[in-house]
Amino acid sequence: MKALVLERKGELAIRDIELPREVGPEDVKIAIHTVGVCGSDVHYYTHGAIGSFILREPMVLGHEAAGVVLEVGAAVKNLKVGDRVCMEPGIPNMASRASKLGIYNVDPDVRFWATPPIHGVLTPEVVHPAAFTYKLPDTVSFAEGAMVEPFAVGMQAATRARITPGDVAVVIGCGPIGIMTALAALAGGCSRVFISDLSAPKLAIAGQYGGITPVNITEASLLETVMAATDGWGADVIFEASGSPRAYQGIFDLMRPGGTLVLVGLPVEPVAFDVPASIFKEARIETVFRYANNFDRAVNLIAAGKVDLKPLIAETFAFEDSIAAFERAAKGLPDDVKLQIRMPG
Amino acid sequence: MKALVLERKGELAIRDIELPREVGPEDVKIAIHTVGVCGSDVHYYTHGAIGSFILREPMVLGHEAAGVVLEVGAAVKNLKVGDRVCMEPGIPNMASRASKLGIYNVDPDVRFWATPPIHGVLTPEVVHPAAFTYKLPDTVSFAEGAMVEPFAVGMQAATRARITPGDVAVVIGCGPIGIMTALAALAGGCSRVFISDLSAPKLAIAGQYGGITPVNITEASLLETVMAATDGWGADVIFEASGSPRAYQGIFDLMRPGGTLVLVGLPVEPVAFDVPASIFKEARIETVFRYANNFDRAVNLIAAGKVDLKPLIAETFAFEDSIAAFERAAKGLPDDVKLQIRMPG
Amino acid sequence: MKALVLERKGELAIRDIELPREVGPEDVKIAIHTVGVCGSDVHYYTHGAIGSFILREPMVLGHEAAGVVLEVGAAVKNLKVGDRVCMEPGIPNMASRASKLGIYNVDPDVRFWATPPIHGVLTPEVVHPAAFTYKLPDTVSFAEGAMVEPFAVGMQAATRARITPGDVAVVIGCGPIGIMTALAALAGGCSRVFISDLSAPKLAIAGQYGGITPVNITEASLLETVMAATDGWGADVIFEASGSPRAYQGIFDLMRPGGTLVLVGLPVEPVAFDVPASIFKEARIETVFRYANNFDRAVNLIAAGKVDLKPLIAETFAFEDSIAAFERAAKGLPDDVKLQIRMPG
Amino acid sequence: MKALVLERKGELAIRDIELPREVGPEDVKIAIHTVGVCGSDVHYYTHGAIGSFILREPMVLGHEAAGVVLEVGAAVKNLKVGDRVCMEPGIPNMASRASKLGIYNVDPDVRFWATPPIHGVLTPEVVHPAAFTYKLPDTVSFAEGAMVEPFAVGMQAATRARITPGDVAVVIGCGPIGIMTALAALAGGCSRVFISDLSAPKLAIAGQYGGITPVNITEASLLETVMAATDGWGADVIFEASGSPRAYQGIFDLMRPGGTLVLVGLPVEPVAFDVPASIFKEARIETVFRYANNFDRAVNLIAAGKVDLKPLIAETFAFEDSIAAFERAAKGLPDDVKLQIRMPG
Repeated sequence: MKALVLERKGELAIRDIELPREVGPEDVKIAIHTVGVCGSDVHYYTHGAIGSFILREPMVLGHEAAGVVLEVGAAVKNLKVGDRVCMEPGIPNMASRASKLGIYNVDPDVRFWATPPIHGVLTPEVVHPAAFTYKLPDTVSFAEGAMVEPFAVGMQAATRARITPGDVAVVIGCGPIGIMTALAALAGGCSRVFISDLSAPKLAIAGQYGGITPVNITEASLLETVMAATDGWGADVIFEASGSPRAYQGIFDLMRPGGTLVLVGLPVEPVAFDVPASIFKEARIETVFRYANNFDRAVNLIAAGKVDLKPLIAETFAFEDSIAAFERAAKGLPDDVKLQIRMPG
Repeated sequence: MKALVLERKGELAIRDIELPREVGPEDVKIAIHTVGVCGSDVHYYTHGAIGSFILREPMVLGHEAAGVVLEVGAAVKNLKVGDRVCMEPGIPNMASRASKLGIYNVDPDVRFWATPPIHGVLTPEVVHPAAFTYKLPDTVSFAEGAMVEPFAVGMQAATRARITPGDVAVVIGCGPIGIMTALAALAGGCSRVFISDLSAPKLAIAGQYGGITPVNITEASLLETVMAATDGWGADVIFEASGSPRAYQGIFDLMRPGGTLVLVGLPVEPVAFDVPASIFKEARIETVFRYANNFDRAVNLIAAGKVDLKPLIAETFAFEDSIAAFERAAKGLPDDVKLQIRMPG
Repeated sequence: MKALVLERKGELAIRDIELPREVGPEDVKIAIHTVGVCGSDVHYYTHGAIGSFILREPMVLGHEAAGVVLEVGAAVKNLKVGDRVCMEPGIPNMASRASKLGIYNVDPDVRFWATPPIHGVLTPEVVHPAAFTYKLPDTVSFAEGAMVEPFAVGMQAATRARITPGDVAVVIGCGPIGIMTALAALAGGCSRVFISDLSAPKLAIAGQYGGITPVNITEASLLETVMAATDGWGADVIFEASGSPRAYQGIFDLMRPGGTLVLVGLPVEPVAFDVPASIFKEARIETVFRYANNFDRAVNLIAAGKVDLKPLIAETFAFEDSIAAFERAAKGLPDDVKLQIRMPG
Repeated sequence: MKALVLERKGELAIRDIELPREVGPEDVKIAIHTVGVCGSDVHYYTHGAIGSFILREPMVLGHEAAGVVLEVGAAVKNLKVGDRVCMEPGIPNMASRASKLGIYNVDPDVRFWATPPIHGVLTPEVVHPAAFTYKLPDTVSFAEGAMVEPFAVGMQAATRARITPGDVAVVIGCGPIGIMTALAALAGGCSRVFISDLSAPKLAIAGQYGGITPVNITEASLLETVMAATDGWGADVIFEASGSPRAYQGIFDLMRPGGTLVLVGLPVEPVAFDVPASIFKEARIETVFRYANNFDRAVNLIAAGKVDLKPLIAETFAFEDSIAAFERAAKGLPDDVKLQIRMPG
């Protein structure tokens, strides 16, 4: 089947490649409609690896996808042919110790689309377990459906934060994941979210949303802004979504006593962490690895209109222009929160 | 000072009465601007008692209030003269065992406005601890400020539910507390809230809000509605806000496995509770007694525009017409979610 | 294969019966060594049904079992031939919505040993998923291994209680599950556990354990005992393990403000539940359905010597005397916390 | 009154000093019986400061104390003259925002004994709020009562860990706080606790306790030990109680997926923190600042015999030998888990 194949670092091709086609009893076959381009896809394209995941064989890219069910396995009950769906790209061993606990995202044996050596879904059809395929209501477009995956990371952050209704949050870093986190935090119960960055265009996109206050740290102090807004008490929840080691400097000053820090961004190097500062606030610190048990609730929030992801889609490319899409994505333009690719047919 | 005094069951008077005037070091004196009429105020008026709280001496009514700070005690730091404020009407012993745990609402020694023998605040001025007096931002009106108290009950329900972002909720009972609970649940992270009642006018008021789906149980099955909306899985959270023993019949059928039931309504008699049904769902059941640590977060949500309480205010009476306000409230018109009284000056 | 078959209500036979023998890739085959007799086994024997589970075909009894691994499927990693093991008797669909959440015990499709129409394990060999088979350390005997299942119910109760270290608990009902709950609560962090019953012999068994205080309610007031021990504050956690509707009368009086009630016992009829009493304490109420993710931690506590279940085993029968074992169990002698059956070979 | 006064860094004196004597309505006056010597007392003696807390005036040392109530204020209900008690040394503003939330330990205005400029209690009598004075049962000695304070730090660690019954824990660092944490974790629900250190004598003391496995990291790999004991899964909870930056190296390798790290030790400098390692495990990280709402539960566990602190008391000095006690403590002998001072009379 035709697919967008990353042949090796820096080299993409649209070509035929052999992919699994057999629909097991608990699987569905899906006609892919829309696929989002993720930073990790781009990173494999530009660097050939992410940490210990190294591209050794050609691999199909893409893991943010929505489509239509073409075929259902014999044991599938939750879906039928013709259903519009989005897919959770990690397939854990559901009998593993982590999965039994409900934290299948940290199952060490999880197989994740477009993470070497597992193929992604920039291809017209894919077979996937029904358990990780989620129905989209008619009111949710395919483009939105393909946004559920990145939004689910924000949902995981908002979930692990255990927001108390009315909390004030800060999100550090206004990249795609920072914005997703801010939107999830707001829909998930926060009254206000401050989001900080150095990039005015990124902040302008976040600032479109009611309830999100952008803070350009080249112009204003995030600490002073938060303290002014909270009568000197501090924010209830801080989300670190920049992955920048510098974000950790003074991060607990932003927090109210007994507040929460949620780590979403992945710094490349160890950060300098001020343990006494965390202890004097008696902070709780949560971490976010992908997502689990979130896709259904993410779809609910989009369907209900509580979260509008459409303004984040900068441009949609045809499948035959996928390579151009990746070249554009590799530029990292600040306005390009999300690029998507539409499959033919 | 002039006040609305409940002389005895069924007899109200606006007259002078001696009230505490001394401003201690940790107190503030507040000029009352607006006071809401609560069902409990009305119940003392019509019945002279609620449970074991029995009116034995004349008592000033009113406990939902907003106003302006007139004077601050020597040790007060969080407020200054001229601040617009709302007040939490229960004054616990902050050194009690419950208060030390942060659950000052269940301190057995709490003194609560307009609960015999403690006077309420339908009077021009009141002295109150600064710790239980909350600043209103300029964007929050006095009328909204006086709604914070009833909304805080909904906030407590939403808080104790421990909503996971995107949860689907059901609220049983569309009285004032049911509506407050629905609004708090929605602002607090739910994607959708179904609210059920027998009264079409009450449901019409709730149905004004996006995200709230009214279900008239004289016309439709609540169970079928919820199951249709959740693919047969059930709601994540059920709030019982009717206080009707009949609501408990089949209540766990509405719930997904591992779901949550939150008890807000106070049935007068013991209810018939189906323990096996709760166990087969492995339900968590939470209860709500007034509120604690909620007023600031309630104000945040109102100020942020995530919760709009203004449509719930049916009519505002002048202080000199307070008795008429109570007579109207005693009729229990379904449209009258909230009546308020404006103090002179 | 030979098995103890419940032919119909009141009629048992040891006879050959066809049972599944095929070892799938994720299964193990186990030589059963010891099986405990559970109240539910006895109830099927004496009544032919429990609630909606009705015996329609002959069924092998027994679901509390330990044994030795005879054979492992191709994909099994956590076990090897010769491992001494105990087994979790419910087999959920691990791809179900409940299982994905980690609450596989409430998966509606769970297949549970010796619950019609699923066969139990009073038979020499059984095939079971490796994921629900748990290794026993050398220091844990087969007899103790066969006690893990009933102890896991107590563990689930202690887990859902979310005990804070040093909490004071009350267990109502000193049957097998009440004792298991008391032991789990004590090992799980409580400082003291009061256990109440009408039966002196049952209480004497519980009273052997340091930290458990038996309260014979024919002789002493449970409320007064708890209040004397807690300076009038009340217990932090109450476990209802009697299944008696009368236990619900005044149950919240035993509880401290903000305490927890855990429902373990299954009353046959609806109970009269005092909602206001629960609300005035702002109680949290948890329910317990079997167990999930507990067997490993139960084994840990037994292996560490923190929980000693051996004193609870009243007598061990040979497999050929199983019918006698059931006749004895059906008498319900108060001293017979647990009878066990040893398989031949 | 006579007291042990730290005149300045390195200079102690037993001399008269003026101390508050007035017993307010909510206070008690206590005759001090036993006082433990804490590492922080010693650090003020040897360094004259801890972080930003700098000794500028002479200060009475000592904050781990037990004694007898001599006098009670007019409003005190929970205590009477003659009660044997221990005291929580931090006095928060109970009307503060943090205190209202139940986290009075992080109230920025807390006044803490023997933390400049607040005097400690190495003096025959002290006045203290009744709310922070806890009755000792007859079975708990004064020496044990004076150990409640350091044990409460371990209790706070065990509480914030939210131990699930049967969890396996690791404590890094076998100083006094490490041992207290290990004992609290064990009493608080863990099945096993591994404790690591470089010092054989310290580990020998910890190893006296059943359930605690000492690991001398000069001889064995902590990682291999934990993995062997958990079938390669990892520990559920890691307590960092060493305060050593090196402890953070590879700390998440010890943890099971979805495990918890609790930070108790205070490294002097920022530590190198491996954010991706924490995220790949989706760790929860909790921090511990002193304690709140723990003293009663700590006393419960000691009274119940679940925790035996007596083996940790290395030697008891008479008050007139206090300076010798501090000189001995300043040597930091590995066997000296706790030195105590007995007041005269």
